[in-house]
Amino acid sequence: MIVIGERINGMFKAVGQAIQDRDKAVIQDLAQRQLAEGANMLDINVGTATADPAGGMRWLVESVREVTDVPLSIDNPNLPTMKAGLEACSGRKMINSTIGSDAALDTFLALAKEHNAMIVCLCIDDKGVPVDVDGRLEIAMRVLAKAMEHDVPIEDVYIDPIVLPVKADQTGPGKVLESIKQFTMLSDPAPHIVVGLSNLSQGSVDRKLINRTFLTMAIGVGLDAAILDPLDTELMDAMIAAEMLMNRTIYSDSFLRAYRQK
Amino acid sequence: MIVIGERINGMFKAVGQAIQDRDKAVIQDLAQRQLAEGANMLDINVGTATADPAGGMRWLVESVREVTDVPLSIDNPNLPTMKAGLEACSGRKMINSTIGSDAALDTFLALAKEHNAMIVCLCIDDKGVPVDVDGRLEIAMRVLAKAMEHDVPIEDVYIDPIVLPVKADQTGPGKVLESIKQFTMLSDPAPHIVVGLSNLSQGSVDRKLINRTFLTMAIGVGLDAAILDPLDTELMDAMIAAEMLMNRTIYSDSFLRAYRQK
Repeated sequence: MIVIGERINGMFKAVGQAIQDRDKAVIQDLAQRQLAEGANMLDINVGTATADPAGGMRWLVESVREVTDVPLSIDNPNLPTMKAGLEACSGRKMINSTIGSDAALDTFLALAKEHNAMIVCLCIDDKGVPVDVDGRLEIAMRVLAKAMEHDVPIEDVYIDPIVLPVKADQTGPGKVLESIKQFTMLSDPAPHIVVGLSNLSQGSVDRKLINRTFLTMAIGVGLDAAILDPLDTELMDAMIAAEMLMNRTIYSDSFLRAYRQK
Repeated sequence: MIVIGERINGMFKAVGQAIQDRDKAVIQDLAQRQLAEGANMLDINVGTATADPAGGMRWLVESVREVTDVPLSIDNPNLPTMKAGLEACSGRKMINSTIGSDAALDTFLALAKEHNAMIVCLCIDDKGVPVDVDGRLEIAMRVLAKAMEHDVPIEDVYIDPIVLPVKADQTGPGKVLESIKQFTMLSDPAPHIVVGLSNLSQGSVDRKLINRTFLTMAIGVGLDAAILDPLDTELMDAMIAAEMLMNRTIYSDSFLRAYRQK
């Protein structure tokens, strides 16, 4: 499982404050704690904490890069900020994200090629999030065709079926599970499939339970990446157990500890 | 989800003792506690606690029937004990279980018809548990054909793909998930699909985590019944959340409480 730690996000109060104060220690501590709990990549999201998002993104990326070599996911909807993040990031990186319309895919896949970057492609187009599985599948197929056109390897493409709050639409999670199943059959090798997990439980009371339950269900149908909170121990335990049950990691009596130590 | 409470089982020390002492209060308390936590049926397993298993089974069934009208799952591999349990059980009942060989299916499906009973059919035949998904599918198809032959309605047939300890064979859980997916497509309406959950974690350290993780993964691919421990609160929470995410129960902020109260 590819775990992209979500905690370096300017929307969190402490992180927003650290961005404003240019307080590296707060950011680097969050990076290291997420990695210690099993994150393989770190999402870097400047949020709305600063009037200079490109400068804030550059500072965040450089601060995190001082303490780790893992790939960084540059998370911003705005092209100049995205470019600032990509340019500031030495080593491996991810574009997070583009929508799946032709024009956006052309722009962002070219950028991915230029930076040898991984890229998250959302199942959203100019009409918004498709109401059904077929609409998501159509966008996913367009993503794969466009990736080939731009010579971006399928291994670097992460398709996101879009998880919406279950509180707003209870039919959503089932559609996402069905979409994941179908995405695994789209190509060989299949593209990576990623979700932004926490969105599922926006506005709900039992957020952590909802998140970890859905994560294991999604792993069971083929999800192989997620943007999530690695500091949520019960979430990580559930994920590690699901990976073990899918025979993707080796069973031992201490499989939870072994996963985190690797 | 059809939850068959597993706790009335002579293999548990307190239950075995209660069977020997004919101590109704212990058994009736276990029945009522499991129902309060969301069980829809109760498994009744006399185990090896008594030299007179048929008598012990009869006493267990009658004791439980005094306090509840839910269907009782008569759980015994031995035909005379099974018959004693079925005869003692007024109201709705389940035969748990038969293997999927022709001869066993003929015997036990005839018994199901005679008692208007539900029946658990294990994906085991004279050669044992199939090593692959296809072997399980073959047995499941035989079960459905035999059920039609014996005029047992598909709604009363519960196919069990057989969950073995993950510690013994780590490829097992994935095969069970794939089998469940395929069973859902065998007929319309599909047969019920049931697992004996606790067997999965036999010999493992993090038993409850393994059980609840697999349960939610299995619900995600179509499982609709399980023999499990309803007194394991975290297990039930995970199951209720999975049911909600599959849109099988209505979301509310208090969906956990609502499920248990229904």
